Amino acid sequence: MKKRPFTLAATAFHTPERGILEVLEKHLFSIDAEGRIADILSPADDGYEQKKEAARAERTLVELAAGQFLLPGLIDLHIHAPQWPQMGKALDVPLEVWLQKYTFPLEAKYADLDFARTVYADLVDGLIANGTTTALYFATIHGPASLALAEICLAKGQRALIGKVVMDDPVQCPDFYRDADATTAIKETEQFIEAVRALAPGKRPLVQPVITPRFIPSCTDEALKGLSHLAARYDCHVQTHCSESDWAKTFVEDRFGQSDAASLDGFGLLTRRTILAHSNFIDEEDMNLIAARGAGIAHCPLSNAYFANAAFPLRAALDRHMHVGLGTDISGGYSPSLFDGCRHALSTSRMLQSGVHAHLPPQERGLPGAPINHCEAFWLATAGGAQALDLPTGSFRRGLEFDALLLDTRVAHSDIHIYDGYDTPEDVFQKIVLNATHGNIAKVWVSGREILKGIEPR
Amino acid sequence: MKKRPFTLAATAFHTPERGILEVLEKHLFSIDAEGRIADILSPADDGYEQKKEAARAERTLVELAAGQFLLPGLIDLHIHAPQWPQMGKALDVPLEVWLQKYTFPLEAKYADLDFARTVYADLVDGLIANGTTTALYFATIHGPASLALAEICLAKGQRALIGKVVMDDPVQCPDFYRDADATTAIKETEQFIEAVRALAPGKRPLVQPVITPRFIPSCTDEALKGLSHLAARYDCHVQTHCSESDWAKTFVEDRFGQSDAASLDGFGLLTRRTILAHSNFIDEEDMNLIAARGAGIAHCPLSNAYFANAAFPLRAALDRHMHVGLGTDISGGYSPSLFDGCRHALSTSRMLQSGVHAHLPPQERGLPGAPINHCEAFWLATAGGAQALDLPTGSFRRGLEFDALLLDTRVAHSDIHIYDGYDTPEDVFQKIVLNATHGNIAKVWVSGREILKGIEPR
Ligand SMILES: [Zn+2]
Ligand SMILES: [Zn+2]
Repeated sequence: MKKRPFTLAATAFHTPERGILEVLEKHLFSIDAEGRIADILSPADDGYEQKKEAARAERTLVELAAGQFLLPGLIDLHIHAPQWPQMGKALDVPLEVWLQKYTFPLEAKYADLDFARTVYADLVDGLIANGTTTALYFATIHGPASLALAEICLAKGQRALIGKVVMDDPVQCPDFYRDADATTAIKETEQFIEAVRALAPGKRPLVQPVITPRFIPSCTDEALKGLSHLAARYDCHVQTHCSESDWAKTFVEDRFGQSDAASLDGFGLLTRRTILAHSNFIDEEDMNLIAARGAGIAHCPLSNAYFANAAFPLRAALDRHMHVGLGTDISGGYSPSLFDGCRHALSTSRMLQSGVHAHLPPQERGLPGAPINHCEAFWLATAGGAQALDLPTGSFRRGLEFDALLLDTRVAHSDIHIYDGYDTPEDVFQKIVLNATHGNIAKVWVSGREILKGIEPR
Repeated sequence: MKKRPFTLAATAFHTPERGILEVLEKHLFSIDAEGRIADILSPADDGYEQKKEAARAERTLVELAAGQFLLPGLIDLHIHAPQWPQMGKALDVPLEVWLQKYTFPLEAKYADLDFARTVYADLVDGLIANGTTTALYFATIHGPASLALAEICLAKGQRALIGKVVMDDPVQCPDFYRDADATTAIKETEQFIEAVRALAPGKRPLVQPVITPRFIPSCTDEALKGLSHLAARYDCHVQTHCSESDWAKTFVEDRFGQSDAASLDGFGLLTRRTILAHSNFIDEEDMNLIAARGAGIAHCPLSNAYFANAAFPLRAALDRHMHVGLGTDISGGYSPSLFDGCRHALSTSRMLQSGVHAHLPPQERGLPGAPINHCEAFWLATAGGAQALDLPTGSFRRGLEFDALLLDTRVAHSDIHIYDGYDTPEDVFQKIVLNATHGNIAKVWVSGREILKGIEPR
């Protein structure tokens, strides 16, 4: 879809390299008819004034006001779309109750396509309003409902990677919510891949299919093998859960005599386009293997506090230059905001480093190493996520997709308090990362298309 | 100040007893001319319809719309008022830099009364907009600026307990920001107490003075003794920091040969009206002592993740029926919202219970015991804080002050998504605790006075 080119005059913050904040003060961003960044000019560059005047004359200039800033769109590397109605609910019950009484019965409801369409429309609106321009979704086992999610993302303009979930093991999965058998699961996954590719053809599809075994414990060997063949044949993204908890780690070791990561690799499911959710219990060998394959990790710190029994060793992963991004893990995590994701990544990192148990001696309490900072957290939520997904977005560079949000610090409902002459641009960025909410997000673009223009009351 | 009585027809959530949620569906709340709750009627009570009709006829009926709920006002047990401009800033630097380069120079600026008035007005507006109806403030060492904060709280209608900070030890405090000596610090504290009491006389003052030694390391023995005499003479609240970090704990033990709590008790500073911030490193003996004195603890989970080296043993404190509430600890904590406080108390509690370090065996990783739930977290932010401060507020009971907020789940900027027929009232409450932000708070009352009526753009 061709769009009208436009030029943005804005102060932008982004973190194209891990931990490095770039402040692009009063730059001009030219967006082409394909929705890509054609050019970025600083006020010191030749032609800056002419370009600005020309855009103004053509009425294609968008100028940000004082207190408004441009940021790259946020990337959610792990979210369960069907669990949206459950967001912020049932987090006071044990995991087994959460799964059997709440989560599986809710996911089973998506056999009803009308229900799916209603919820998924609300979900995609809610995520866009929170600045999520790209999401990697687990859907359900239902092909039609999963395809409806793809259609809704396409219609609303959100970049999305969507998986029809596979869970076929009758021992681990409930009768009321399970693939009939491995053959059916593989066949329906293949149909789903083809249907999504038919929906969004071309070299730069906005929505893409993802091969999605829920996690090893819920899949038979036959299903895992079949999915790996599809991944190779269709050159598809893959997503699954990896070593989330003591239970999951031990289950896989007991079944295959090796770690979760090594087992996935054995099936051919660990590729450059694989995203592993959680991975809290991976060891050094797993890290080396995942890094060697170029696979990515979706770090979900909030959900981990509830269900994982330990924190992901983020600093160690970053030191190895592994591909890591952030996931909300709705509804194991209750927040749809990747700004919250950044904040929970920060506090979790600090708590892992210093430890939590006061009665242990300081040197035994935590895991040595530096905590992450807000620039690294924001990198995870943007450029890091894009790198993990192998997508040309996540920062402001010529040739990248223009996926961005307009953050307004001066709206009525703002906890970002900037004091002129006291706060540097770097301080402003930190205040944004630490206190931005839904209410600060005034516009959202994906591939140059404005997909949120303020919000109407519901 | 007499106010016009009114009646609210609303569904309210509150947690009058720790961990127990009460849902008051479509109740009538009668607020008297003193701003207290005169009566609460359920639809099943005699006289409900007559009362409602009478209030409607008198035009004193306020009826909440669908999706709107009444909650008790939130109580912030620990906040540094002068650090408001620093909220969300400089959290990426080591503690020593944070204190010496940022915090102390900022606090020193409040010698300038105009600066103080500007910032404090913004602060009190910002907290009210977040639903904070009562705050226990650390101000600065400056009497006039601290009094200005009291005047501003009184004018804007926020319930406040305010301390002029004492820090007189020349070894620990910087030359540019320190009380001249103990005698001056005590004299100025006494003047401050009298000035605040003159400002808000009577038996139910909206603002009250608090005796505020910053923490033992920053005070001389002489200052601590003098402040303790003032506390007894004026029957005043006391606040200080206690056993926040390894450093603070060890410093006090080295100086006095006993714990922070025992040392404060030795000076006579541990009373029924004392609030100890943090207290992460208190042991069983300290807990018994604090509980015996009836003193309270301001748990500040977010700031603790950054600066405390360990988590407060909240479950153990609650099991002993200690008085505990929540503090934002701005700007060691970056969020002004006590809903965020609830959420960080929840995730910290879970991380303390399960541990964080994956390479330790599960049984050695954390501290056994149940994590807290969202009802306990909300109790901390409301009734628990009121109990700790010995104030008649924090829940909806006849005779209590009407300090409340109107939470609207249907505003444009909301992450609270309620599905009718799927969510129970208990689910709705959990969704509110886990996802309410600034933007969901539509009205705020303190002592029956409406102190926030929607928000105008800045
Ligand atoms: Zn998940
Ligand atoms: Zn403090």
